Amino acid sequence: MSSRIVELIERKRDGGKLSQDELDRLVLGFTKGDVPEHQMAAFCMAVVFRGMDDEETAWLTDSMVRSGRRLDLSKFGRVVDKHSTGGIGDKVTLVVAPLVAACGAPVAKMSGRGLGITGGTLDKLESFRGYRVDLTTDEFLAQLERIGIVVTGQTKELAPADGLIYALRDQTGTVGSIPLIASSIMSKKIASGAQAVVLDVKVGEGAFMRTLGEARKLARLMVAIGKAHGIRVTAELTAMDAPLGRAVGNALEAREAIESLRGEGPKDLREVALAAGAEMLVLARRAPTRAAGRAMLVAAMRTGAGTAKLRELVAAQGGDAGMVDDVARLPRARTVRTLRAERTAYVGRIAASAIGLASVRLGAGREKKGEAIDHATGVVLRASVGEAVARGEPYAEIHSNGRPGDAEALELVRGAFTWRQTAPPRPRLVLDRIASR
Amino acid sequence: MSSRIVELIERKRDGGKLSQDELDRLVLGFTKGDVPEHQMAAFCMAVVFRGMDDEETAWLTDSMVRSGRRLDLSKFGRVVDKHSTGGIGDKVTLVVAPLVAACGAPVAKMSGRGLGITGGTLDKLESFRGYRVDLTTDEFLAQLERIGIVVTGQTKELAPADGLIYALRDQTGTVGSIPLIASSIMSKKIASGAQAVVLDVKVGEGAFMRTLGEARKLARLMVAIGKAHGIRVTAELTAMDAPLGRAVGNALEAREAIESLRGEGPKDLREVALAAGAEMLVLARRAPTRAAGRAMLVAAMRTGAGTAKLRELVAAQGGDAGMVDDVARLPRARTVRTLRAERTAYVGRIAASAIGLASVRLGAGREKKGEAIDHATGVVLRASVGEAVARGEPYAEIHSNGRPGDAEALELVRGAFTWRQTAPPRPRLVLDRIASR
Repeated sequence: MSSRIVELIERKRDGGKLSQDELDRLVLGFTKGDVPEHQMAAFCMAVVFRGMDDEETAWLTDSMVRSGRRLDLSKFGRVVDKHSTGGIGDKVTLVVAPLVAACGAPVAKMSGRGLGITGGTLDKLESFRGYRVDLTTDEFLAQLERIGIVVTGQTKELAPADGLIYALRDQTGTVGSIPLIASSIMSKKIASGAQAVVLDVKVGEGAFMRTLGEARKLARLMVAIGKAHGIRVTAELTAMDAPLGRAVGNALEAREAIESLRGEGPKDLREVALAAGAEMLVLARRAPTRAAGRAMLVAAMRTGAGTAKLRELVAAQGGDAGMVDDVARLPRARTVRTLRAERTAYVGRIAASAIGLASVRLGAGREKKGEAIDHATGVVLRASVGEAVARGEPYAEIHSNGRPGDAEALELVRGAFTWRQTAPPRPRLVLDRIASR
Repeated sequence: MSSRIVELIERKRDGGKLSQDELDRLVLGFTKGDVPEHQMAAFCMAVVFRGMDDEETAWLTDSMVRSGRRLDLSKFGRVVDKHSTGGIGDKVTLVVAPLVAACGAPVAKMSGRGLGITGGTLDKLESFRGYRVDLTTDEFLAQLERIGIVVTGQTKELAPADGLIYALRDQTGTVGSIPLIASSIMSKKIASGAQAVVLDVKVGEGAFMRTLGEARKLARLMVAIGKAHGIRVTAELTAMDAPLGRAVGNALEAREAIESLRGEGPKDLREVALAAGAEMLVLARRAPTRAAGRAMLVAAMRTGAGTAKLRELVAAQGGDAGMVDDVARLPRARTVRTLRAERTAYVGRIAASAIGLASVRLGAGREKKGEAIDHATGVVLRASVGEAVARGEPYAEIHSNGRPGDAEALELVRGAFTWRQTAPPRPRLVLDRIASR
């Protein structure tokens, strides 16, 4: 006699382990509507407290993959994907996906929208007027074949259990569980057919993982899940204490990404993008070593091949590709308020979460799922951590369109900066790298 | 800005405490349908892991009471209620409620049905053909005034939040939480208007509380909640390692209760009933001491006043009161299978849970809520713990009506008995007593 669902919940509550078959009944039953939301919610909360071991997490991921269709991209060669666990100012995908595709590795990526203080790649791409993020599976496959790059939203056919479970977790205080995060990310990656994935696991004040220890745990788990599913996965642990780059907000970030594609962007963004891109080229077997991959990417910046590939991507998905060349045509906020230093000092810290929250208040992010956002607004940092700012010089800009939250945003940005009289050490960016053997 | 429900769940998940106002929003919102079931389920699971302190549990109880109507029974004098946390063969209410009412203390009790291996008072009373357990509030009050005793089901008007939350807990593995159990029991007691309550907290192998420590925790919490609501509460902790009395199954238990009312029942049942009844008379200010109360109850057994009161109760609620005098007319199973000792030995233990499960398999209990039950079937123990049984003599009877579970029931009963060659010590019954000062 098979256990009832409540017995599976009780077993997890008491610290036990579910079998692949039992996880199938839970996850596939939930996807079909046979297992009610309150049972799945209670199960997720029990997982928050009790966790799951590597094998159980891989089984859970597998159940989620099998809740829908799994794409087979093998005919395109070794397709590589890239995923970030989310940070403030993280526009790495916009830089690295075109560069890697320009270097000959097919890039097929399904991205998400911003939620909370973390922006989303889809929102940033929609800064290009007309850019479609709702490609069908057929369109996805056709575009990958034609131009070797596609960046769109998750289709409902792929890992539908993940979308349903995530919506529930978001409402039930069960987002913060490493096995649930790992299975959510990896089920989408596996279902979307990539043969290799570079994961950018953000660590720090502005990230979901606050400590290197937690981040390592998540990274190891995702690498193990990938291995169990025959996918090469490398996780790069990168710092997210300050925002990445200088722009936070959708069109502002698109503009900064275009500058970076030309090799003109901020150093930290360039560093993280080159690290991820080099690893992608290695996994896609386009470069023998990371150093070689890095040289290929730098060349693609210099020759303009990366920018050309972004133009091609935007055009292919119905967007206004002219904006790539004329960034002044990207959405722009009506007013820019500049914050100036009250006394000469070094920037000691810039709290990423406060900058992220400020951009939400300015309308660049969502307080609630499904809300409209303003692509034009956001924050631009005029000084990075470790730089000195002279009294009266600008250290940040608030790009606003006149919202009730503007005043709060300004105070958040002001409060995000910590000043000091001596130069702080430059923070490290790539903290660790975990790969399947 | 008030916290969103998900933030309340997160606070509990992280070990924090909710305010009275926040618990109101959660509980009253859930009762109205504004807070979805999956959020309440996640909250309950977080409570399973994090618990609640006494104050928070009293607030939760209060929110549940205020989800519906609260009866005022003060015009009837000091109305006393009695509640058991549930055990196997626990027919104490059927004995003690009529006896206490016969001694002049008004008894108003809302009971429940059996669920799982534990029987329910309502099911046992329905063995009297026609007995109604669905009195309206007006009928409840009128009967209490007229005959001083009423035992019916919970009306939907009283603590509706409890019914809704309990149904959810039953499906989500969140039944086993001491603050949730305490608030569930006490919200019903408070809403139904009793001024004094005797709680029979069962401890042992066949009870929800397995250890005396857990049972004390639950008892103290319920006494504290009562105090916070101006109700006198005494909790008696009684043993539930073996079934109470010899009969397990609805009509079989009704019959045994009638024998006990006349002073002819098994010793252990008599002992627990007199302990509860004496405390009820003290709390109702009908007896100065427990010893005096005990003497009054024994007199009511001897004079037949207790039996007369049961007859009155059954008749008042539409039941066949003739069955009280002629127990042979109670529902009877078609076949009785007798188990006989294979060798002469003492009964060392009788596992209550196995006997309870056997009675469920025989149809006397429910596998699922809402299922029909068979009032005639069950188990009768022919020997109690500590008694010697000679080879070939009966030690148990299986009363069955020919169900697929009969064979399993027989094996369960056989396996429930542990035999030994020396007389075991007689187990203690009343283990502790916790009262408000």
